Amino acid sequence: MDLKSFIRDIPDFPQKGVIFRDITPLIKNPEAFKYAVDTIVEEVKKFDFDLVVCPEARGFIIGAPIAYLLGKGFVPVRKPGKLPYKTVSDTYELEYGKAELHIHEDAIQPGQKVLIVDDVLATGGTALALKRLVEKVGGEVVASAFLIELTYLNPRRLLNNLPIIAPIKY
Amino acid sequence: MDLKSFIRDIPDFPQKGVIFRDITPLIKNPEAFKYAVDTIVEEVKKFDFDLVVCPEARGFIIGAPIAYLLGKGFVPVRKPGKLPYKTVSDTYELEYGKAELHIHEDAIQPGQKVLIVDDVLATGGTALALKRLVEKVGGEVVASAFLIELTYLNPRRLLNNLPIIAPIKY
Repeated sequence: MDLKSFIRDIPDFPQKGVIFRDITPLIKNPEAFKYAVDTIVEEVKKFDFDLVVCPEARGFIIGAPIAYLLGKGFVPVRKPGKLPYKTVSDTYELEYGKAELHIHEDAIQPGQKVLIVDDVLATGGTALALKRLVEKVGGEVVASAFLIELTYLNPRRLLNNLPIIAPIKY
Repeated sequence: MDLKSFIRDIPDFPQKGVIFRDITPLIKNPEAFKYAVDTIVEEVKKFDFDLVVCPEARGFIIGAPIAYLLGKGFVPVRKPGKLPYKTVSDTYELEYGKAELHIHEDAIQPGQKVLIVDDVLATGGTALALKRLVEKVGGEVVASAFLIELTYLNPRRLLNNLPIIAPIKY
């Protein structure tokens, strides 16, 4: 299945000069949604991990089915003020602007292994912040998975040797 | 499995007088997460629907696995400025404060049937806004499912005859 044919390009969103890759046509199509999740699951099941860690909000749409299917726990990473319990935070640069992400301080047991999941891998800034957050609370990131990788932004340079799964590439 | 034992009560969040029902201990436990999703799936599969419609962000964590498992499409409903394409919106009151939600104008084909999914059913205000949004873009809501229902806020009064599935009740 040509997953890329279900992605809609939106020029100048959320700001001028950025082409936004809109995944909503893909996820509303049952066959494409299932195929995308299954393709990622097939790759990530080779890794040994306990938890799926996802940033809000689109990441949840991809990461939650993966966690369910592989029998893993799901940990949300959220913007400031959203998580109700005590949190640990990280500030970082992204493709457009700055961002601050939080994780519950008790979200991960020391030594637990983590798969990071998000919808789009752009500069790698968000993924790197997720990795730092996981490490701050005692976990270890063993791999990362995305629906889409924007190779022209060179995210792999930032993520060093972290394994990266991404069925759709631009 | 006693799902309620995995919910953490956070008093005075997000504001004084509100007890926030924190689902993060449940979803990070693989068995509890699977059991919760399976319990809802078992109930909602009796309904005939094409799409799962979910509000950001926690709703995605419950709704995406349900859509995947039942072979349905997934449609996100989001806060202002988040959806990249043309949207239709609705403003409504919730348990604390006001909110505005958006759906892509082409998210639903005329006549498609919808299951609404969110993590918590509180006053019913969000669910009712979701129902109006679905109807504005030509769909029909046939049922709704939540992980938690706060019966003491009387949400069923607002939702009339809409079927409501919710395995955890307070």
